[in-house]
Amino acid sequence: MIAHILSTGDEVLLGDIIDTNSAYLCSCLKELGIDVQKIISVGDDVETIASNISDISLNADICLVTGGLGPTQDDLTAFACSKAADDELVLSKKALKSMTAYFKKRGFAFTKENEKQAMLPSKSIMLENYNGTAPGFYISINQCVFFFMPGVPSEMKIMFERQVKNVLIKKYNLNDDILIERLTVFGLGESMVGALLKGFTEKFPGMRLGFRANFPVIEVKIILSAAHQDKQKAQLKIADAKKWAMDHLENKVVSEQGLSIAQEVGRLLTQQKKTLAIAESCTGGLIANMMTNVSGSSDYFLFSGITYSNDAKINILGVQKKTIIDFGAVHEQTALEMAQGARVKAGADFAISTTGIAGPTGGTKERPVGMVCIGLAGPSFSKAKTYTFSFDDRLMNKTIFAMAALERLRRHLIRIR
Amino acid sequence: MIAHILSTGDEVLLGDIIDTNSAYLCSCLKELGIDVQKIISVGDDVETIASNISDISLNADICLVTGGLGPTQDDLTAFACSKAADDELVLSKKALKSMTAYFKKRGFAFTKENEKQAMLPSKSIMLENYNGTAPGFYISINQCVFFFMPGVPSEMKIMFERQVKNVLIKKYNLNDDILIERLTVFGLGESMVGALLKGFTEKFPGMRLGFRANFPVIEVKIILSAAHQDKQKAQLKIADAKKWAMDHLENKVVSEQGLSIAQEVGRLLTQQKKTLAIAESCTGGLIANMMTNVSGSSDYFLFSGITYSNDAKINILGVQKKTIIDFGAVHEQTALEMAQGARVKAGADFAISTTGIAGPTGGTKERPVGMVCIGLAGPSFSKAKTYTFSFDDRLMNKTIFAMAALERLRRHLIRIR
Repeated sequence: MIAHILSTGDEVLLGDIIDTNSAYLCSCLKELGIDVQKIISVGDDVETIASNISDISLNADICLVTGGLGPTQDDLTAFACSKAADDELVLSKKALKSMTAYFKKRGFAFTKENEKQAMLPSKSIMLENYNGTAPGFYISINQCVFFFMPGVPSEMKIMFERQVKNVLIKKYNLNDDILIERLTVFGLGESMVGALLKGFTEKFPGMRLGFRANFPVIEVKIILSAAHQDKQKAQLKIADAKKWAMDHLENKVVSEQGLSIAQEVGRLLTQQKKTLAIAESCTGGLIANMMTNVSGSSDYFLFSGITYSNDAKINILGVQKKTIIDFGAVHEQTALEMAQGARVKAGADFAISTTGIAGPTGGTKERPVGMVCIGLAGPSFSKAKTYTFSFDDRLMNKTIFAMAALERLRRHLIRIR
Repeated sequence: MIAHILSTGDEVLLGDIIDTNSAYLCSCLKELGIDVQKIISVGDDVETIASNISDISLNADICLVTGGLGPTQDDLTAFACSKAADDELVLSKKALKSMTAYFKKRGFAFTKENEKQAMLPSKSIMLENYNGTAPGFYISINQCVFFFMPGVPSEMKIMFERQVKNVLIKKYNLNDDILIERLTVFGLGESMVGALLKGFTEKFPGMRLGFRANFPVIEVKIILSAAHQDKQKAQLKIADAKKWAMDHLENKVVSEQGLSIAQEVGRLLTQQKKTLAIAESCTGGLIANMMTNVSGSSDYFLFSGITYSNDAKINILGVQKKTIIDFGAVHEQTALEMAQGARVKAGADFAISTTGIAGPTGGTKERPVGMVCIGLAGPSFSKAKTYTFSFDDRLMNKTIFAMAALERLRRHLIRIR
């Protein structure tokens, strides 16, 4: 089956927004076993949209279209579709009813402009919009079925998930009985992950691998289409493949469930009923921010002291003045005392600390940009280590420093488990 | 002039990565006065790439192509181009020389696979890659000039900025004499910004507006093509337009130079030779992280206490135990004492604090998700205020809380200036 995606809207072509919808839809279609052959973005112009729809109708079997269903004059997709389909726009009673209900629920006034959104091609079938006003629709043109969805990501996603997906599964007898296992990998580049997992497809026929680089981790998906298979057998098969992948990725898998490092550390702390304090210099609050992005983190995360100044390191965390004078702020001894200080001050079970040079300035020959000292303090163990990374970018350095600190804690937590 | 963008690579069609290159290139072309009519993404398949190049060569005047220039077997763009151009690949001595120099500088071994990257269509002209190994090139096919660049954003960007842009300007006598003014707007939605600036185009002919929503701010660009104009006159014209826009956006402009709120607050603190401490509960380190993403922030940012637990608020920031017992953690009095405590402990001129409910859990009828108390303490002024926002999302709430806290400080700093 040949699938295309057509994204409409001037804002993409003007560079004002990045088209994230298409990547989302590609990934959803891939999970259904459908490969997308082409993504096209065009502006808000009736003739252009209509001629692209006509072209696609002769070359693809399905096409997902996003954007241009709103109430303003720029929103021309339904009209362009009716032109390409040699159809006419008619007021859809179903769409009107659904829209009035939506407006009523929110106490908005229903205007004449909104009525335009209920004008759909006569041969189309409406798709409900649960998150907004513009209804979607689908329609066959030549050999291709077109699904028209809004451009607002939250509206598009729910329309795809709840409706388009089901129509596709039913219409094409697709296989949505899909098992997916996710691994989060840290410490290997994407090409290295690919190289280590070479031979997977031959060893596990019927399964697919997907990779997504999300600096500094690589997310690995193992996908098994389990339709027409015994469920239990399929589960065993994918568990086997997962074990194989984990063995080949050695000790670089930070989560066997595809969690972020902060989620995984949080999970381990919860499981072990332990609490955490942090002392950050060069990461500047990033570790605390990552930890507190996880809902429920107040159960185990107590405190982070972002001590950018030496005085704060001394007065708030209790680092010895002599340590700073003798060794400087970027030193394992300082990192160690920061972690120990944060742990004691917050009354936490564990503490991690960072002090280093994120750059772009502040590096020296002995302490170059990319160098970081990471401290770890626990009830029966305290140690600091130095790491050196080679990114030129301040934000990348902060990110990799934060990741390395959390990874040190994670390894400690699984060892003592 | 009709411009198309062709992005190649399986990873985009698989949904593994989001195509940010095309948005970047659209925005660059727009600044040169060139509108992009179509963006196409296709996979790593020679026939598909070649047939798309052929189509585009008959429909566009220029086309920017990204991806597929690497050393692996997937990288087929140069070959596809040679097919579409009815040309052959030849070893480019210039490319080879540039690549060997790049490898030597970094101490990498030059392999046979890399030599493939120096094979370019015989009729093409090479483009230097300053940030990687794969050279780019440009070539005329039918009515269209194609520019081939790598898919890695850092390599593509520098190739466009330093070379492709100049070729375009020279070849088409374009106008790179562009004046741009940037405003950062907070507290208004994108449609509201558009509505407030209605009439701009009529009032300032020859100038364009661009908007980019970057939650929670809207970035506004005022663009003036100043070619064939007296430079000083053009400067005055755009200054006039900027003043008009700022008047219409009332007090919602947080930076007149398009800076982020953290950069703007940092700029004001530097200007006034003042220092900052922060006390964060619900923002969990996000404010400190935003501040320390700015290089040079160690000049004014001293400390942030991320006090998630009540004990940390009491023991580290010196909040009164009685305050927490009487009023709870989310209260203006607590926020006030947090800010005052952080200011004194760090010896800073100013401090801001946040305590609230980021959600999704933890809300009550009196203290719903989205409520935040923000404290501000200075040498002659201390006050806390309550704000309520209505996002359902934890990360959006953290972001808007952080933004609101920094905006309060910014307003205070410009008032006392």
